Amino acid sequence: MTVSSQPALDGPRQRDPFLVELAERDLLVAGQAPGVDALGAPVERVVSRMHAEIGALRREQHGATLHFPPVLSRATLERSGYLEGFAHLAGSIHGFVGDDDAHAKLVDELSSGADWGHHQALSDAVLAPAVCYHVYPLLAGRLPPGGREVNAFSYCYRHEDTAEAGRLRAFRVEEFVCAGDRATCERWREEWLDRGSAYLRGLGLTVRRELAEDPFFGAARRLLGADQHRRRLKYELQVPLRGRWLAVSSYNLHDDHFGRRFAIRRDDGEVAETACVGFGLERIALALLAEHGLDLDAWPADLRGRLCR
Amino acid sequence: MTVSSQPALDGPRQRDPFLVELAERDLLVAGQAPGVDALGAPVERVVSRMHAEIGALRREQHGATLHFPPVLSRATLERSGYLEGFAHLAGSIHGFVGDDDAHAKLVDELSSGADWGHHQALSDAVLAPAVCYHVYPLLAGRLPPGGREVNAFSYCYRHEDTAEAGRLRAFRVEEFVCAGDRATCERWREEWLDRGSAYLRGLGLTVRRELAEDPFFGAARRLLGADQHRRRLKYELQVPLRGRWLAVSSYNLHDDHFGRRFAIRRDDGEVAETACVGFGLERIALALLAEHGLDLDAWPADLRGRLCR
Repeated sequence: MTVSSQPALDGPRQRDPFLVELAERDLLVAGQAPGVDALGAPVERVVSRMHAEIGALRREQHGATLHFPPVLSRATLERSGYLEGFAHLAGSIHGFVGDDDAHAKLVDELSSGADWGHHQALSDAVLAPAVCYHVYPLLAGRLPPGGREVNAFSYCYRHEDTAEAGRLRAFRVEEFVCAGDRATCERWREEWLDRGSAYLRGLGLTVRRELAEDPFFGAARRLLGADQHRRRLKYELQVPLRGRWLAVSSYNLHDDHFGRRFAIRRDDGEVAETACVGFGLERIALALLAEHGLDLDAWPADLRGRLCR
Repeated sequence: MTVSSQPALDGPRQRDPFLVELAERDLLVAGQAPGVDALGAPVERVVSRMHAEIGALRREQHGATLHFPPVLSRATLERSGYLEGFAHLAGSIHGFVGDDDAHAKLVDELSSGADWGHHQALSDAVLAPAVCYHVYPLLAGRLPPGGREVNAFSYCYRHEDTAEAGRLRAFRVEEFVCAGDRATCERWREEWLDRGSAYLRGLGLTVRRELAEDPFFGAARRLLGADQHRRRLKYELQVPLRGRWLAVSSYNLHDDHFGRRFAIRRDDGEVAETACVGFGLERIALALLAEHGLDLDAWPADLRGRLCR
């Protein structure tokens, strides 16, 4: 089957006015495609400080933060079930396959603006859609009594067709994964909802807690979305961004989905349940700019001391 | 044209003995595919400290470090000429195209282990092959007198088929880009060769400087490789890694290649020349482990103070 390139992501695009303002003040470096912007140096510092602060919220219990590259093994993604639920958001990495003649043809196609995607083949790597997918393979086997918490950090990628503020395609998430029995996962998530709310309020943000569902695709949309909502499997913490609410942190129970797929067993030999909590660092930084203003020198003194130096 | 997935990158693989040693001591978290390993927390700290130190080598002159996501616009890659020279190393990002029926077919293919790459279409994004590709579009237009230097940082991706130590597929580079006239670029590169050598020697590494050529593909291999060598356009600084030499930093003149392609003009209106210098942070960290040992507490005191706390 020959596929054509995706025009929806290629066309010119109305940039979100907030992003335009940020770019005018060097708080954002506008990317050459929607959703691949870079942060200006002062905002990058805020992200880096929040990475340390959020990671430290549980440092005594979970050990060192695992820092992963943006790339994940394709086998792990396939095993996780992500493509069943979210094929439309996955970014697969493809590489050139061919000899010098095929390459000469590619070069011709480039110069004529033709789609050269047919020279590329699915590789054994994909972009990580969420940090926790790096973690599940490492949890395979038997957990210690009481379960286990892991803190991990990486860039994530979502293949989203939008240039709206807060919906980046490449972004960093500070994530925590819990594996154990149901009660442990539920209690852990509840504690993190409190801890996450307190952290965000401590940044001077107004926080609301909402039940949410994942943007499932295909058959999974009908089968899983309502169930997720009804069974309260996903909460988000949302904060204001210029007149709308932006989800900046999510709190998820997975039942035994990943436990089964990655052979994670509890201390007593039963399949483990898992839960995860993620903080979207670029999103929180954007919310801070919206709340406290684009002049970081005018932010509240305690925030300047914590995040801007 | 139908393409098949790339078995060469998928098969089981002899892991480099040095990487095995590192993984046994939690200094490396072995990825589920070759070349996508993560660093253990103590080594991650070393990388983070070197990022700050190398960036600071010229902070007074070049302003703040630009920190980019791992993803680059496809249009920028096409414009840069990278695919003409290095199609085999590029990683293009593909996304799912199709409706619920196509998705059901994808799910079937996944469960039978079939290649599902044909559902994916070339998107408007690619993985950044080098940090400097983020920078060239930002230099378009007229440079100030004396040219301009930019410091930038991001993850890079190379589609390499190897699991050898030091040849990661996803890795971080601290990079400097210079744009100006020929003499400025040549002097700038020479200064950086001295500065880079001094920095690496200051880490206790033995450093050798070598003429090098890029691993061109296709017709470019014959046309450009020897020329690059003869005209001394590329130098590398190499350091020992377990009985071989590992290139950890490269120093490149580009003539007016990027100046023409990205419409970068000198102060006098002529097309600018460019040069770039990159430090591979994971590679330097691996060389430090090989040189000073896998017990970071036993590293020389000044290095511990600088890189390990």
